[in-house]
Amino acid sequence: MQELKERIRREGKVLPGNIIKVDGFLNHRVDTKLMADIADEFAKFFDVSNITMVLTAEASGIALATICAEKYKVPMVFAKKAKSDNIEGGLYQSEIYSYTYKKKVTQILSKEWMTAGDRVLIVDDFMANGEAVRGLCDLVSQAGAQLMGIGIAVEKGFQGGGDRLRNQGLNYHALAVIEQADGNGIVFREDT
Amino acid sequence: MQELKERIRREGKVLPGNIIKVDGFLNHRVDTKLMADIADEFAKFFDVSNITMVLTAEASGIALATICAEKYKVPMVFAKKAKSDNIEGGLYQSEIYSYTYKKKVTQILSKEWMTAGDRVLIVDDFMANGEAVRGLCDLVSQAGAQLMGIGIAVEKGFQGGGDRLRNQGLNYHALAVIEQADGNGIVFREDT
Repeated sequence: MQELKERIRREGKVLPGNIIKVDGFLNHRVDTKLMADIADEFAKFFDVSNITMVLTAEASGIALATICAEKYKVPMVFAKKAKSDNIEGGLYQSEIYSYTYKKKVTQILSKEWMTAGDRVLIVDDFMANGEAVRGLCDLVSQAGAQLMGIGIAVEKGFQGGGDRLRNQGLNYHALAVIEQADGNGIVFREDT
Repeated sequence: MQELKERIRREGKVLPGNIIKVDGFLNHRVDTKLMADIADEFAKFFDVSNITMVLTAEASGIALATICAEKYKVPMVFAKKAKSDNIEGGLYQSEIYSYTYKKKVTQILSKEWMTAGDRVLIVDDFMANGEAVRGLCDLVSQAGAQLMGIGIAVEKGFQGGGDRLRNQGLNYHALAVIEQADGNGIVFREDT
């Protein structure tokens, strides 16, 4: 998606350790117009008229997923990070490893809000190792719901999370795949 | 706001300890159409054509704040919960007490995304003790920005957070103020 790549080139910052900061328009300050354009772009890859919900993970995915859900006229559901080890009943749970927090995190989702009849589009703003999305897929599977697709705005291609999902044959699309990010700038994978 | 009160009456659940669950449409599964109606309602109370940003707190405020920002054609910015005591520079910080987590939480916001020229509308989905909003007001003050108003969807009136803000003479509006919630059901404060 050209518009997104241009924003990343223009406003993204590469920090030591291959960290890419896009917090001026994606995940701290959010450009809602850009989110709407991303939602329209996802609609080219996924049959959004046939989904029953958009699923994302707390916290930074919520903004994009909300705009997508509003456009596709379905509810947005977000998996929460468990507050403690003392998890109440009636929840789907998945264990993921958070590279940001450097610890295991439990994603939880009330069984009330996703059931076997649901057709789910997973949306997230950013993919690195893909742990958050792996956890979301696991929640969809626990519910016996149907995974209709996975839409990611920005993927760090060199960290492998996206390729693992592609290799599983999932209906996965990322709109900007960063192949390299260092002192020489940002290089994108060719549009696919 | 009649539509919101009816949803709370119909779908809200009162749990022991005056806990009100509205997670079927507000803060776990999110009804984006309702969020859009709430955003339109806020626009009756606040001069949304004169703001430069919508500010909220991670995580559950993000959905509503995103829809508001999209409608008002401004960016949405969310204060993050600090990940550790090791806070990097270039940040505004506020210390709040989280009754949910029963501990102190530090809200952080990059100085890049709010400056003295900003005219800020604070939006949150839910107010109980008002600690999150108190922290957000503090961040606005640290930036030297102008607080244009505070819009809350659901306020637990009996916990005092909203009244403290009203008593400070702030431009504060909550669209559904719950005065009582127990085994006898939910009672709203008269529309104001």
